[in-house]
Amino acid sequence: MNEELLKLVNAEYFDAATIKSVLPFMNTIDIADIFDEVGRDKEKIIRLYRILPKNIAAEVFAEIDSEHQESIVGALSDFEVGDMVNRLFVDDAVDFIEEMPATVVNRVLRTVSREKRKVINQLLQYPDDSAGSIMTTEYIALRENATVQEAFDLIRATGLDKETIYTCYVIRQDRYLLGAVSAKTLMLSALQDGIANIMDIHPVSVKTFDDQEEAAALFKKYGLLALPVVDRDERLVGIITVDDIVDVIEEETTEDMEKMSALAPSDDPYLKTGIVKLARNRIVWLLVLMLSAAITGGIIAGFEDALAALPILVAFIPMLMDTGGNAGSQSSTLIIRGMALEEIHFRDIFRVIWREIRVGALCGIGLGLVNFVRIYMMNGRNIVLAFTVTVSLFATVMMAKTIGCVLPMLAKKLRVDPAIMAAPLITTIVDAASLFIYFSAAKYIFHI
Amino acid sequence: MNEELLKLVNAEYFDAATIKSVLPFMNTIDIADIFDEVGRDKEKIIRLYRILPKNIAAEVFAEIDSEHQESIVGALSDFEVGDMVNRLFVDDAVDFIEEMPATVVNRVLRTVSREKRKVINQLLQYPDDSAGSIMTTEYIALRENATVQEAFDLIRATGLDKETIYTCYVIRQDRYLLGAVSAKTLMLSALQDGIANIMDIHPVSVKTFDDQEEAAALFKKYGLLALPVVDRDERLVGIITVDDIVDVIEEETTEDMEKMSALAPSDDPYLKTGIVKLARNRIVWLLVLMLSAAITGGIIAGFEDALAALPILVAFIPMLMDTGGNAGSQSSTLIIRGMALEEIHFRDIFRVIWREIRVGALCGIGLGLVNFVRIYMMNGRNIVLAFTVTVSLFATVMMAKTIGCVLPMLAKKLRVDPAIMAAPLITTIVDAASLFIYFSAAKYIFHI
Repeated sequence: MNEELLKLVNAEYFDAATIKSVLPFMNTIDIADIFDEVGRDKEKIIRLYRILPKNIAAEVFAEIDSEHQESIVGALSDFEVGDMVNRLFVDDAVDFIEEMPATVVNRVLRTVSREKRKVINQLLQYPDDSAGSIMTTEYIALRENATVQEAFDLIRATGLDKETIYTCYVIRQDRYLLGAVSAKTLMLSALQDGIANIMDIHPVSVKTFDDQEEAAALFKKYGLLALPVVDRDERLVGIITVDDIVDVIEEETTEDMEKMSALAPSDDPYLKTGIVKLARNRIVWLLVLMLSAAITGGIIAGFEDALAALPILVAFIPMLMDTGGNAGSQSSTLIIRGMALEEIHFRDIFRVIWREIRVGALCGIGLGLVNFVRIYMMNGRNIVLAFTVTVSLFATVMMAKTIGCVLPMLAKKLRVDPAIMAAPLITTIVDAASLFIYFSAAKYIFHI
Repeated sequence: MNEELLKLVNAEYFDAATIKSVLPFMNTIDIADIFDEVGRDKEKIIRLYRILPKNIAAEVFAEIDSEHQESIVGALSDFEVGDMVNRLFVDDAVDFIEEMPATVVNRVLRTVSREKRKVINQLLQYPDDSAGSIMTTEYIALRENATVQEAFDLIRATGLDKETIYTCYVIRQDRYLLGAVSAKTLMLSALQDGIANIMDIHPVSVKTFDDQEEAAALFKKYGLLALPVVDRDERLVGIITVDDIVDVIEEETTEDMEKMSALAPSDDPYLKTGIVKLARNRIVWLLVLMLSAAITGGIIAGFEDALAALPILVAFIPMLMDTGGNAGSQSSTLIIRGMALEEIHFRDIFRVIWREIRVGALCGIGLGLVNFVRIYMMNGRNIVLAFTVTVSLFATVMMAKTIGCVLPMLAKKLRVDPAIMAAPLITTIVDAASLFIYFSAAKYIFHI
């Protein structure tokens, strides 16, 4: 279906009538995709937007790329802009406005209804990544003394404009959150039942300024479809729905991965980020780590006498450094991910260290054996050299495993993001320590 | 509430009456947590399970740890086991059975109803990570000629035992999937409306043998709450709900992260995996990479003459290796994640390479300047040495960025998991190449 529509849209002659007849049968997300596929042909984008059925235009608009949104808004009259933004869910309106340049923002805010403007302005004030910044204000609110019948009537009258009708919230006059009732409960109850008798009291909720990660954790733990957001006085101000939380989960994981690879985290998709910004996101950590690696270089330089006496020692530096780095990043990845998924907590630290020591010993012995045989066979059966390198390798693996698990856990305790303490930093530390052990061992064993 | 219940449960005297009176007010997930907190005290776990209200016992059971599930099942009579498993949603029953030893599995399958046994056996046959393996068979199925009123009646009569009632599926006599209708649409329609007139035709679906990742991608793209699973003939066999998909997303990301850190991926939580298995998951890649690093060692050994003439060259090996590794892993992480989120596709390869070349040049120039000044100042104002190292550093960064983006994309094209082509492998390749460049440049520049 999508392919065919794309062909129609890309055809030389823009067959508005045929396209219009196909649109009602398509998913709004697929229609939005078409806008992105059309590319930078502004005129076509606007023509396509103009033939969207009114009732889905806002829905489609919410899903398309911000650069195309800007083109469309630029081509619409003030009245049309206001009408369209009024039809958007508030959270989608806020997402859209956040990406627009100031002039467009002003125009949009000028054209929407007063009420909507007030809500949008309020949501725009919540800090990035807070629960308040991802919530929406379109939910079904019931009074405690309502009946199931009244709830159905309210849903029927206003449900079309609500982000979800599957959880309704029960509030007092002052908006204090009393309870929640699912559409499932409503449908399975008798029409004359009182809401107060069938609602869940004390539903799980977050505060507006809580981190969106906390909201995501609650969704995961309780398998929620929606989560109420309350202010400091427990008054209901909005809800978060599960489709938005899926995005939050992806975003937070991407951020973790980026930090673990020595990147400054960024929300922008790779292909839409400027070259200079991409470089800036990378160079700070590269610089820090480059300068730290100079310390390792200094350690090597300090053993010039040993190197002069036994130049072959140099040949094993890459193997020791790489194995240490890999062994450490294995541990740190498992621990950082385990903490993110709340499978590992700080109280487990001694258990974790004891596990890593044993795993390190097993890996160290396995690698050591292979390494010993290889060096012995390939370096003139020099058993003392093979022994020196193998002992250093074993010590490196043990150390890498221990540091790899301890640093992220300590970081968490000190409220530093554990992902920052990941592979690159651990590698740098392990490098310096392992080469120090290696050359010291060589000096001692070979009496240099 | 949770804390208080935990105190009650852990008290010397097990106050069954008080605990029992508190349970109905608690979320089933929180109750399940209590089981995990109690730890290995089997007797207490069974006592606690026995006082659970019948209507929530199965729900709680589905959420607790498999080792505790095993203890409970061991203490129940055959009749009780059968009754409890009959009350479980089929997908939860399958998850539970998959973790049990063979004797328990046999007992469970013997005690459940014939019908349930048949479905469980069927689901157990789907391959791990397939859509079929995570679906459930409890959904609301409607006939095309039903009315909204009839749909409501069906929901009311059977909805309690369905995993979701928020999407109902419309099927033919032979179970061919005709459409889907949301509870929202039902609630907003007139009672006498025909289902055929209000349903979405051709709803998005997956096949039983499709990868669960494909299902997750559809949930993300379309913001779904549930997804129908059909067989080869488009007949409805089950549904997947969004709460299970959130777990799939986390699982797949963990797997990617593990592969990117040279770990064999594993589903088991860290603290519940045996030491030997943990070591086995790590040692294979460590061995491969250790042996590959020996190649780099061989390259260094081949430049013995250069090293003998200019021993200071050794001091810059760690800096070159670490910077190359970090620069490469930055690129590979961005590309691998971008492909996983479908922001980057293979057709973008030349665009990506061109971007990485420019970003690499910017980073290389920045790092090179700092590096040049540092070496010049700290190594007796030896401008030729500083120049040699800086040129090698620049080449290393450029190469790391290019290889870091090309390898994962090629892997994807060749249907190898891009995450395998991540940091560790790229580091090893970049190490060898960069040290070769470094020593070659030194030999040439210093006429060694």
